[in-house]
Amino acid sequence: MNYPSQVLELVVNEFAKLPGIGKKTALRLALHLIKRNQQDLLFFSESLKKLANEIRYCDLCHNVSDAEICDICSSFSRKKDQLCVVEDLRDVMAIENTQQYFGVYHVLGGVIAPMDGIGPDALNMDSLIKRVGKGEIKEIILALNATMEGDTTAFYISKKLQPLGVKISTISRGIAVGGELEYADEITLGRAITSRVNYGG
Amino acid sequence: MNYPSQVLELVVNEFAKLPGIGKKTALRLALHLIKRNQQDLLFFSESLKKLANEIRYCDLCHNVSDAEICDICSSFSRKKDQLCVVEDLRDVMAIENTQQYFGVYHVLGGVIAPMDGIGPDALNMDSLIKRVGKGEIKEIILALNATMEGDTTAFYISKKLQPLGVKISTISRGIAVGGELEYADEITLGRAITSRVNYGG
Repeated sequence: MNYPSQVLELVVNEFAKLPGIGKKTALRLALHLIKRNQQDLLFFSESLKKLANEIRYCDLCHNVSDAEICDICSSFSRKKDQLCVVEDLRDVMAIENTQQYFGVYHVLGGVIAPMDGIGPDALNMDSLIKRVGKGEIKEIILALNATMEGDTTAFYISKKLQPLGVKISTISRGIAVGGELEYADEITLGRAITSRVNYGG
Repeated sequence: MNYPSQVLELVVNEFAKLPGIGKKTALRLALHLIKRNQQDLLFFSESLKKLANEIRYCDLCHNVSDAEICDICSSFSRKKDQLCVVEDLRDVMAIENTQQYFGVYHVLGGVIAPMDGIGPDALNMDSLIKRVGKGEIKEIILALNATMEGDTTAFYISKKLQPLGVKISTISRGIAVGGELEYADEITLGRAITSRVNYGG
């Protein structure tokens, strides 16, 4: 495509590098930005610069953070002996939104996926083992996606951490709240039956 | 949603202001940017700054441009007596891609849409009439979308420009090349019949 302006082309190319955004959408976004006022656009530019220069990862849980230690890890009201292992930041946000968990997190930064060449070394696995090894943590909750890779990673972690004598659990699989049995797939329904819970508990 | 970092939240909010991008997609894009290297991110930020500070509109045709007069308007190889009126930049790019048009353009910046409160005053209509009034332009080609608003705008322009004695045409409506009659809607097929072209011409 021939762009009427090199600056416009520059911005379109940058947007098109983002996942799920092609050249046509990128052009639409760039044109939308041109139509907005200049201050808005400069603010957007500035916010990206801030992201590049100021974002960092928490030294303890590897979550995205503004400081060396993130708000959750440094909070006095969180239980430091309960550790929830998740794949990435979005999972932390999802669990935080439930307001049902009061421990701390460990963000792996991915899951073991041999097909994509991602082994345990590429993840924040060593620091997890060291962290649990210090003895402060009593319970590990594995909150990984219910996929083949998630299950593999959970299995790997449980093998590594069991010798350390901590209690390890995984979030339950089952019928979603509000879901109908009829529409559940067989594997989920099967798991819901095998991991049934005593009524009233 | 509670974001673990204020800088991240800032960027997510900026992305979510773009058309067709919600909070979840915005977060996905922001996380993708964090994972890229810092230089890339700074370059993206810089390109938006450039867009804010350097982009301008051609004084003649109102197309997006890097200079006072755009490449097309300042080119010696373009016919200056043939003017194609389009809605926006994307239409210019689409027509340029056909490599079938060698005149110049006039970008309206929209179409007349009374339902959205857009009248002729909100468009680059005055400058079109002045430009044609100078007498250099011999032919006007209206290349507007085949919608109600596009047709209204074409009608308005033709009414305004007819007294100036220029030849006015509109791009033809008809069956798309490669299209089958069977699947064409009645209005398009009807137009294709009424505006039939002599065979061989």
